[in-house]
Amino acid sequence: MDVARRAGVSTSTVSRALRGVPTVSPEARIRVERAARELSFALSRSASSLVTGKTRRVAVLTPGLPRAPWFLGTCLTGMAGGLREAGLDLLVYAITDTTERAAFFERLPARRNADAVMVVSFILTEEERERLDELGVPVVYVSQHAPDRASVYIDDVAGARQGMQYLLNLGHRRITYLQSAAADSFVWSAYDRLVGYREALEEAGLPYDDSLVVRAEYSRSGIREAVGSLLSLPQMPTALFVESDDMAFEVMSILRSCGIDVPGRMSVLGFDDHPLAESLDLSTVAQSAWRTGCIAAELVSSVLTDPSSDPTRHIVLPTHLIPRGSTAPPPTDHQAETPAVAQQEPPSPGRTVNGS
Amino acid sequence: MDVARRAGVSTSTVSRALRGVPTVSPEARIRVERAARELSFALSRSASSLVTGKTRRVAVLTPGLPRAPWFLGTCLTGMAGGLREAGLDLLVYAITDTTERAAFFERLPARRNADAVMVVSFILTEEERERLDELGVPVVYVSQHAPDRASVYIDDVAGARQGMQYLLNLGHRRITYLQSAAADSFVWSAYDRLVGYREALEEAGLPYDDSLVVRAEYSRSGIREAVGSLLSLPQMPTALFVESDDMAFEVMSILRSCGIDVPGRMSVLGFDDHPLAESLDLSTVAQSAWRTGCIAAELVSSVLTDPSSDPTRHIVLPTHLIPRGSTAPPPTDHQAETPAVAQQEPPSPGRTVNGS
Repeated sequence: MDVARRAGVSTSTVSRALRGVPTVSPEARIRVERAARELSFALSRSASSLVTGKTRRVAVLTPGLPRAPWFLGTCLTGMAGGLREAGLDLLVYAITDTTERAAFFERLPARRNADAVMVVSFILTEEERERLDELGVPVVYVSQHAPDRASVYIDDVAGARQGMQYLLNLGHRRITYLQSAAADSFVWSAYDRLVGYREALEEAGLPYDDSLVVRAEYSRSGIREAVGSLLSLPQMPTALFVESDDMAFEVMSILRSCGIDVPGRMSVLGFDDHPLAESLDLSTVAQSAWRTGCIAAELVSSVLTDPSSDPTRHIVLPTHLIPRGSTAPPPTDHQAETPAVAQQEPPSPGRTVNGS
Repeated sequence: MDVARRAGVSTSTVSRALRGVPTVSPEARIRVERAARELSFALSRSASSLVTGKTRRVAVLTPGLPRAPWFLGTCLTGMAGGLREAGLDLLVYAITDTTERAAFFERLPARRNADAVMVVSFILTEEERERLDELGVPVVYVSQHAPDRASVYIDDVAGARQGMQYLLNLGHRRITYLQSAAADSFVWSAYDRLVGYREALEEAGLPYDDSLVVRAEYSRSGIREAVGSLLSLPQMPTALFVESDDMAFEVMSILRSCGIDVPGRMSVLGFDDHPLAESLDLSTVAQSAWRTGCIAAELVSSVLTDPSSDPTRHIVLPTHLIPRGSTAPPPTDHQAETPAVAQQEPPSPGRTVNGS
């Protein structure tokens, strides 16, 4: 074989080098690649994959959210780097609506063109998960936890509790949780963050108030409407905990545009640590989308290369509270209005609780 | 063949349906896919591609810029949708540094696993373009124009001129162009926007002043340093035209943090119309990243399916000026400082140009 002769290696080394098998020495790989290039030798991966049964590709299934590309874009960049190091290519299936989603699962059996699948920020039904399992390739769930399947995610419950604890420590008692209406169909984290919100309230002995949990369409007008519903409550919240930084930026801008001082009159706390959060001085619960992508790629690669690795392994990444200028203690006139729900605190002697 | 029998169609229809050939009727495709699923028939695309010579995949080569994922993320979502409609899958190669880039081109001959390549926002050398041409598959350049190759892009020169004309019309004469230092290696548009900046100055009879064109590292501290260099000039600019909205957000935040009113003291104009530009009230030159992706996918699909289509076709998309609250006429004391460079304007009678 011309490439082998030119590179001075065996034909099996050529085959292994071009398929990206890690047992080939870097020197041999370089020689083979140079020889192949000189001969304009275009290896058909298809032909190679028929021999090995491997495609050297990993498919990533994501929701395509044109308005929130930060997490996905950054996570994919991390993944692509990690997979490339392992000699794997990245196939992206960005599913933007339920019709596409149905079509994707309908055609799934014909899609066996990857060695593994990563599912990113996409809530699947148990039936859909089983469909993926039937492909017979490893499936890794990213930014979500799937029972009995390999998963890489942050602990959204704990992250939301961190954020809530911070707001409670500042003295807030009426705290809103603002979430995206899109959370219904796609984003797993949204549910867990709401769980964290509720747990933190309960632990602080504060009641859960339905009117303080609001959903907004993922648009400026949708968010404005949600903020409007909070500003027209008989008793306004003093702090807003927002599901994502993207939405929190809009919330800050809307509040300020209608003369409500942030944080003097209302604190705003986000979730993500988006690259703009520092510039816009937004306090937030930080996660690393890039690191999540890298670690997911490592997990896929280890599941593919090491048959003894645990295919149900869960990797939980930490979150961190980043305090910035969008949060502060509540205004003092509002502390006075706080209902005496925490039974540990007796009503102050000078005033009667609940009017009169 | 079991699938054909179960679906009640010929084996060639099964083959065409599972390969995504468009001549199969939707009904037949649905029957075949259902039958294939019922039989857990996992078509190996590799086997199929050996017969047809087609992989039904399009490779996308992009720079991975963790800090600026908006354009790429949104453009990829548009592409993925357009390709899916054409029955094509999307392979992503996100190249983040020059080592990876060299490795990618080094291994290119072994990469023949796509029917076409899209190169997004990635400046290639002529040698690298020729390497891609040698793959023998159609190559489409996106968000950049490559001579004699199919390309989809906005007219960055015209876009920058639109922005400059607006600032000139407001009365600005000392206008900075702030660009990313990363522009060197990756982003094509940066060059053309600078060309547009220079052309607009020339047309207005204003001199090109080297000290007003500054480059910033793509980080908050890098941008702060660049803003610092402008604020320490003997004569400060009255308007900043910034290469991208991402950077313009940082610029506005830095200016305001050091007490410089935007737009009262300094106007800021971005480029992109990032989803946050409206919330942050940033004037900008708008492009649609999503539409660019969709149209690039259509072009790839037409080049692949229609042999008579022009493989060197260029599609130029429009830009639009979006005036918002970050731009205003220059402060009046600064208009007085403007050097009388436009020869059409005689020096005002009451004062002597260039002092005493």
